[in-house]
Amino acid sequence: MELTFLGTSAGVPTRRRNVSALALRPRQSSNWLLFDCGEATQHQLLKTPLSLYRLQRIFITHLHGDHVYGLFGLLASRGMLMSEMPLEIYGPTGLQEMLQTVMRLSQLRLPYDLAVREVSAGESLAFGDYRIETIALHHSITCYGYVYTEADLPGRFDLEKARKLGIPEGPLFGRLQRGESITLPDGRRVENRDVLGAPRAGRRVLIGGDNDRPELFAPYRGADLMIHEATYLQKDFDRLPRKFMHTTARQLGIAAEKMAIKRLVATHFSPRYDNEKKMKAIEEEIRENYRGELTLASDLMRIGL
Amino acid sequence: MELTFLGTSAGVPTRRRNVSALALRPRQSSNWLLFDCGEATQHQLLKTPLSLYRLQRIFITHLHGDHVYGLFGLLASRGMLMSEMPLEIYGPTGLQEMLQTVMRLSQLRLPYDLAVREVSAGESLAFGDYRIETIALHHSITCYGYVYTEADLPGRFDLEKARKLGIPEGPLFGRLQRGESITLPDGRRVENRDVLGAPRAGRRVLIGGDNDRPELFAPYRGADLMIHEATYLQKDFDRLPRKFMHTTARQLGIAAEKMAIKRLVATHFSPRYDNEKKMKAIEEEIRENYRGELTLASDLMRIGL
Repeated sequence: MELTFLGTSAGVPTRRRNVSALALRPRQSSNWLLFDCGEATQHQLLKTPLSLYRLQRIFITHLHGDHVYGLFGLLASRGMLMSEMPLEIYGPTGLQEMLQTVMRLSQLRLPYDLAVREVSAGESLAFGDYRIETIALHHSITCYGYVYTEADLPGRFDLEKARKLGIPEGPLFGRLQRGESITLPDGRRVENRDVLGAPRAGRRVLIGGDNDRPELFAPYRGADLMIHEATYLQKDFDRLPRKFMHTTARQLGIAAEKMAIKRLVATHFSPRYDNEKKMKAIEEEIRENYRGELTLASDLMRIGL
Repeated sequence: MELTFLGTSAGVPTRRRNVSALALRPRQSSNWLLFDCGEATQHQLLKTPLSLYRLQRIFITHLHGDHVYGLFGLLASRGMLMSEMPLEIYGPTGLQEMLQTVMRLSQLRLPYDLAVREVSAGESLAFGDYRIETIALHHSITCYGYVYTEADLPGRFDLEKARKLGIPEGPLFGRLQRGESITLPDGRRVENRDVLGAPRAGRRVLIGGDNDRPELFAPYRGADLMIHEATYLQKDFDRLPRKFMHTTARQLGIAAEKMAIKRLVATHFSPRYDNEKKMKAIEEEIRENYRGELTLASDLMRIGL
């Protein structure tokens, strides 16, 4: 699986960071998924190898503009590519009305089927090679986290064992690898578990929207990857005259450590931190508590998993 | 007056051209106006000296996405600057519903007064130092052209004449320059016309939206500047399986010449022409008929007038 960070700034774009969007290409897939779609997400895509033609599903965490205002233009541009692959969009209540109103008034007609599905918390959406669960986050507007979990993979094929059992190389190997059981030319029966290792657990990625309670992801303890906002340094947050329901770097470090997250990518930084020195301070504040693998997201950063 | 081209591509952004938007800073003004607001107009502004803080009025030609989808994010970001200067938006019917729906569902609250005024063809809007007239253009959706006309300036102050009349240098000069008439210390009356040249006519700029009939601007024959789409080369347009109601380079050259436009800026080019050689062909096709000063717009290009 491959993740591309298309926007990592909170609220407004800066010259170096766009507003929120994250692309996820599932393992062995040429189609891809988008999580949130801030304004100019389609512009960011022009700088990546990802084509709108192959965008299959969009998941919106919440309807604040910096997470959703890029949707209209992205849908329109995907239409210009004459992609006929249907597109599905998942998100909070209100998404459908917003899209329908803008599309109607701007007379946007799409050459592909668009399905908008408003989700609620606690859903589990099954999509073949992966499933996506929704969880309720805590923000000033209804906001969902999305938990992406790969289907388990069959165990690795044990070539030695297969040879010892006298299985002829060729198509029978492939059938066993795919999890079938076979009958050999001499009549012997071989079960796939005889030549396959233990099934490999699918990886799990936690994708947060805006949220001031990262510990809400606790049911997914031990996840392979968590992508979560760290909008402020603690000292700056403490000084804010009005609290905006965001997570601080300190808070995220504590929560991620407690949840035994294997790898943490912090993102959604306030524009006030838009230089290397200040980003260093955010990294250090997370590090005070979190011992796993830590990355601070930057625009167009790619992660393979 | 100063014009900044923020987006010059038709329909979709390319790596070199964004979708439509044009900034106009009136003579001797620190506030400025925006004509159309395609997605990522606020991102383009980050590359200019123009601040959203000083944006006073927006004029939308039509509601197609490539002219309007940047509005929501731009309003939000202007709000983040805590600008309290009211903002006025003018545009076709439907603009209000689109803005209200998106703002309500994304819970966008602005710290400034926003007035949305839906216009019709043939209006004349007076704004002190300039006025803006609306004209109906011809496109697949209701579309207006905006005609920007500066107020006439008083004639130039004739220093020689003023001295010959024995007017003492100082505050009296200023009053005459501003168009007042004065009484000298010795009791003589001096009319401002005695020392001022003929009033200087305000300049006129024609700003087109999407339109396949550039000759609709004919009532403004002889305008100082016309900014108009030239989406296609004639030969490509002739081959299109479906006509999109846009102007060709040839058509624009013929119309601008006939209307005796002093300076012409062509813009809104189909992404298929996004290289220098093809842009040259567009220029040549306009030149076949148009004898005035011709410029092909590029993103972030600035023109002083």
